[in-house]
Amino acid sequence: MIPTTMRALEIRAYDGRLNLVEKPVPQPGPGQVLVKIAAAPVNPSDLKFIVGAYGLKKRLPVVPGIEGSGTVVAVGSGLMPKFSAGKRVGCMAPETGDGTWAEYMVTDARRCIPLRKELSLEQGAMMVVNPWTAWALLDTARRAGHRAAVHTAAASALGRMLVRLGRSENFPIIHIVRRKEQVELLRGMGAATVLDSSAPDFDARLKEACRAAGATVAFDAAAGEMTGRALAAMPEGSTAIVYGSLSDGAVTVRPEQFIYEGKRVEGFWL
Amino acid sequence: MIPTTMRALEIRAYDGRLNLVEKPVPQPGPGQVLVKIAAAPVNPSDLKFIVGAYGLKKRLPVVPGIEGSGTVVAVGSGLMPKFSAGKRVGCMAPETGDGTWAEYMVTDARRCIPLRKELSLEQGAMMVVNPWTAWALLDTARRAGHRAAVHTAAASALGRMLVRLGRSENFPIIHIVRRKEQVELLRGMGAATVLDSSAPDFDARLKEACRAAGATVAFDAAAGEMTGRALAAMPEGSTAIVYGSLSDGAVTVRPEQFIYEGKRVEGFWL
Repeated sequence: MIPTTMRALEIRAYDGRLNLVEKPVPQPGPGQVLVKIAAAPVNPSDLKFIVGAYGLKKRLPVVPGIEGSGTVVAVGSGLMPKFSAGKRVGCMAPETGDGTWAEYMVTDARRCIPLRKELSLEQGAMMVVNPWTAWALLDTARRAGHRAAVHTAAASALGRMLVRLGRSENFPIIHIVRRKEQVELLRGMGAATVLDSSAPDFDARLKEACRAAGATVAFDAAAGEMTGRALAAMPEGSTAIVYGSLSDGAVTVRPEQFIYEGKRVEGFWL
Repeated sequence: MIPTTMRALEIRAYDGRLNLVEKPVPQPGPGQVLVKIAAAPVNPSDLKFIVGAYGLKKRLPVVPGIEGSGTVVAVGSGLMPKFSAGKRVGCMAPETGDGTWAEYMVTDARRCIPLRKELSLEQGAMMVVNPWTAWALLDTARRAGHRAAVHTAAASALGRMLVRLGRSENFPIIHIVRRKEQVELLRGMGAATVLDSSAPDFDARLKEACRAAGATVAFDAAAGEMTGRALAAMPEGSTAIVYGSLSDGAVTVRPEQFIYEGKRVEGFWL
C-alpha cells in the first residue's frame, strides 16, 4: 500500500540547510520505477551538492541524495519484468528532480541495479559512487601506463575500497592518511604501504615509497596543498588526478614542478 | 689579440649574489669555439638560475648567462669553416661550465648561430630563449588542436614576440597584462585584445574574450593565482601551460576546475 505523502529532506537554496518536509509520493512515468528507499549514504559528493559546489545543480527546491537502495513498489509503462514490483535494487537519483534522501524516489529503471540475495540493502545503497570511481581511477591509470599509484585521503570509504581493489588487481598503491589510527586501520585491511602525512618525515618517506614502487600517478581526493606534496614526491613526468576536495583548499603546486619536471594535474568525475 | 685573463660575473653559491672576478680566458676544445661576448640579456631564466630555482644546476663557482652574442675569436679542432674566427654569432652557454656573463665564453660550435649582416649583436644576443619558446608554445597549442590562446604576463619580452607571432601566424591571442600602461604598449604593437588584470571587471571580460575567440589554452608565465583565474575564464576541457613563474607564487587552482570542468595544468620548458 503506497501512501499519498512521504517525508523527505529538501534544500530550498544551496546553503547546506536540510528541511524535513512532507510531500506527495511521486508516480513513475514511462521507463521509470518508484523505489521505497531503504538506505542512502551521505557521500562527500552529497555534501558538495547541498552547498552548490558539486558539478551538477538541480532546480530548487530538491531532495538531495545521489545514490541509495530500496524496493521497487511501482513501475511505469514499457519496462522489462526484471523491475517488477518487489525487486530489491541499488539506485541512482534521476538527472533532474528529487534524490534518495526521502521515503520514496522515482528514477529511471536504467539507473537501478537489481541486488543479488547475498547483498544487504545497506551494501546495495553504496554500489555506484565509490566503487565505480575506485574502479575507473585504477583503470584510467593502467591505460595511461602507470604501474603504481599514490592515494590521498586514503582512509575514506573509497580509500578502503582501493586497498582491496589494489590488492586484488595487483596494482601497488601508497595510501596517505592524516592520522596514526588510520595507518593501523588500513594496515589491518592488508594495505602494504600506509603513510601518515602528519609525521615529520612524511615527505621524505613518501618520496622513497614512490621510488620503490614506481608510482607515477596520484589519485587525489584531498586537494589543497596535498596535491603539490604528492606530486613533489613522484618522479618527473608524473600526474595528479584530482577527484575530490576534502581539504576544501585550492590545489597548490609549485610552478617548477610543471615547468622543469614535466608534471601535470588533471581531474576525474564519474 | 686574445688576453690571458678576463672579467666575469660569477656565483659561488645559489644565493643570487654576483661576484666580479678576474679569471683565465678559456680555450676551445674539439668542436668548440671561443666567443668574445658583445651582449648578453638578463632573462627571467637567468634570475631563476642564480638563486637555484632553475631546472638546471651547474657546478659552482660558475658564470651565469644562458644566451648572448659576440664574435668568434678562436676555434677548436674539427670545425667547418663557417665558424672561422671573425664570425658574428648568437650563442648559448654550454651545458656544463661558464655562461655568457663574461668577456669571453667557450661553447660548442653547434650552440652558435651565425648572424646575418642585418642583425645587430644586441638582437642576436636574444635569438634563442624567448623566440624559440614563443614559437614552441604556439606550435604545441596548434598541434593539440587549440585555435586561440590566453597569454599571461604578456608585456614581457616574450609576450611582445607573441603579439607579432600571433598576428603573423593568424592565431588569436588574448594578452593579459598587470598595468594600464602595458595595455597601450601592446595595442600599439597591433594586439587586438589586451586585458588589464588589475581592472575590477577583469575576470568577466576575460571570460567573454575567451568565449568570443574560442580560447582553450593559456600560456602562463605568471603562475600563482593567475593560473587559476585564466583557467576559470576558459571553457570546460581547457589547459594551462605553465612556462614561467614571474609572480613567484605557487600555482593555485580551485579543485572543481579539475574535477567537474575537465581542465588541466601542464608545464613547458624549452
